[in-house]
Amino acid sequence: MEASSKEKALPQIVEVDLGNRSYPIYIGSGLLDQPELLQRHVHGKRVLVVTNSTVAPLYLDKVVDALTRGNPNVTVDSVILPDGEKYKNMETLMKVFDKAIESRLDRRCTFVALGGGVIGDMCGFAAASFLRGVNFIQIPTTVMAQVDSSVGGKTGINHPLGKNLIGAFYQPQCVLIDTDTLNTLPDRELASGLAEVIKYGLIRDAVFFEWQEKNMTALMARDPSAMAYAIKRSCENKAEVVSLDEKESGLRATLNLGHTFGHAIETGFGYGVWLHGEAVAAGTVMAVDMSYRLGWIDDQLVKRIHNILQQAKLPTAPPDTMTVEMFKSVMAVDKKVADGLLRLILLKGPLGNCVFTGDYDRKALDDTLRTFCKS
Amino acid sequence: MEASSKEKALPQIVEVDLGNRSYPIYIGSGLLDQPELLQRHVHGKRVLVVTNSTVAPLYLDKVVDALTRGNPNVTVDSVILPDGEKYKNMETLMKVFDKAIESRLDRRCTFVALGGGVIGDMCGFAAASFLRGVNFIQIPTTVMAQVDSSVGGKTGINHPLGKNLIGAFYQPQCVLIDTDTLNTLPDRELASGLAEVIKYGLIRDAVFFEWQEKNMTALMARDPSAMAYAIKRSCENKAEVVSLDEKESGLRATLNLGHTFGHAIETGFGYGVWLHGEAVAAGTVMAVDMSYRLGWIDDQLVKRIHNILQQAKLPTAPPDTMTVEMFKSVMAVDKKVADGLLRLILLKGPLGNCVFTGDYDRKALDDTLRTFCKS
Repeated sequence: MEASSKEKALPQIVEVDLGNRSYPIYIGSGLLDQPELLQRHVHGKRVLVVTNSTVAPLYLDKVVDALTRGNPNVTVDSVILPDGEKYKNMETLMKVFDKAIESRLDRRCTFVALGGGVIGDMCGFAAASFLRGVNFIQIPTTVMAQVDSSVGGKTGINHPLGKNLIGAFYQPQCVLIDTDTLNTLPDRELASGLAEVIKYGLIRDAVFFEWQEKNMTALMARDPSAMAYAIKRSCENKAEVVSLDEKESGLRATLNLGHTFGHAIETGFGYGVWLHGEAVAAGTVMAVDMSYRLGWIDDQLVKRIHNILQQAKLPTAPPDTMTVEMFKSVMAVDKKVADGLLRLILLKGPLGNCVFTGDYDRKALDDTLRTFCKS
Repeated sequence: MEASSKEKALPQIVEVDLGNRSYPIYIGSGLLDQPELLQRHVHGKRVLVVTNSTVAPLYLDKVVDALTRGNPNVTVDSVILPDGEKYKNMETLMKVFDKAIESRLDRRCTFVALGGGVIGDMCGFAAASFLRGVNFIQIPTTVMAQVDSSVGGKTGINHPLGKNLIGAFYQPQCVLIDTDTLNTLPDRELASGLAEVIKYGLIRDAVFFEWQEKNMTALMARDPSAMAYAIKRSCENKAEVVSLDEKESGLRATLNLGHTFGHAIETGFGYGVWLHGEAVAAGTVMAVDMSYRLGWIDDQLVKRIHNILQQAKLPTAPPDTMTVEMFKSVMAVDKKVADGLLRLILLKGPLGNCVFTGDYDRKALDDTLRTFCKS
């Protein structure tokens, strides 16, 4: 087939409904070959692409081309950060500001995040803070970023004492998900993203969970249509929750199933040793264990969750080195603590139901921690 | 007079009208002795007071008392930063996050800025970014902060290449201005704040400017009722502008009369060598010179502006060491540059009128720079 006659697949579009800050998520194959999609969301004549040393060699040229093709007025600068959660800190963030200022970008510029969740979070926070806020666009290239972190406007960096403690709620102009970028994604990263896909089923979408149980083999084999469906359904779930509760006064917190335990693993074990989704998977098992101890779910559901996580080759327990004390000290500074009380997301009732609550028997939490830790 | 019979003066209140983010500015003498004013705006049970090494010995105990008197459920932590514009940077900001995290503050805490503009800007940006946003209260203790920086939600820090390049628009719960705190303010700081008071007259309030011409001696002598009136009228002007244009799409930029030249002086000369208002005063003279060169104002107005600045013991020219090149390089990264074009606030027409425009003869700018710089 010749390039000129190449058919352009129309993207699927999920709308994130946030009043005058609403924006579309475009999902599909070959979207980076459709420059008009990106260009309609670029404000001003200057663009800064923020990416990392892994993604830049694969997709930076393609993105620069998509931004500039037929659009000679636009100038693109780029900053390439080191890859990894351990660089999601103030020092690396400053490199983005340095580049933006050296390039003399002004308020009418657009930042583009090209990469996984770490890049999206850092670029988003940089965009929120540079000159007190400039436009930005998300081009997530991992499953994790495509189904979760690029959608909903949570941005930020880590502090040595905890994940995402410094940041902003800041919405992009659009999210562009070219599913072709998953072709270069390592298996472990793929599985990590699926932990969040599974989460949507567990907390609010039983039908989606059941679909996943039937299609996990296809997802693990990167079947394009299964993958596109899983991404779209995940984005729809996330967009709905975010539209109802942008600033996380309640409902939105349910997206953090397994994340409180998971963050403790990431912090205690060292950022980036386990991938985020791996920590979330182990954390989900712990939240599920606790929910079961409280008598809130039945053992059939516990088994199905173990099964699907194992199919996705995700961990179902924290690393051996984690202690009860490590969990407790990190959980004490969790963002979901209110006036000293730790609220957790726990499953309750049939598949697809959860609660966000501080009203649980402390003994169940202690028992869960002791069950999963050697000391 | 006994403490129990001490009359409490009612504060004057200026409302900043921003929909569901509206808030009051309380202005008056002895307001820190009225705990109920502060306490009604504290959310949650934990407070972090952010102050500096100059203000802490003077007012920290008083503020802690105002926060906790008759209110035993509230715990107050504090962090004392080094004093000065040169510490308004990422390194110092991190000390606020460190303290907040060590103190295990959660989303329901309140940050209190106690100090001048630097403290307010840093504390506000820390509040905007900590856990993606917590409540905060401004207690400004300098004229500069009381008439300008504490009102309107501009927060941020400096970058080595320019002032306030990193920050957020983030509104406080309230601003509490106890005019008694001015009793300890050095003369130079007092004068610096008056530069912004004069600005309100020049850009939008001819009647206020004329009042200032008659009352500058009283202001310089810290006459309490003159001072309270100048603060209130300044806050009213600022509140009105901010209500109409919170995010500075146009009108709000007019508050920056003299600030583009002034920022260049602060950056080129080294942060904190001149006070902000001193740089703004010299910058105002430059903007006025340029407005006159463009034929937009008459020489009578130029003279009146020189006179009032001299009465306030403010500089009317930049430091000798400033060069044309220093001005140009800093002005190129000014936040008011849009798509490469530097827009300036210039006076135009009778007293009290100004424009925010990129539509001016470049030669007038060059001539002004050459007039005020030796090289």
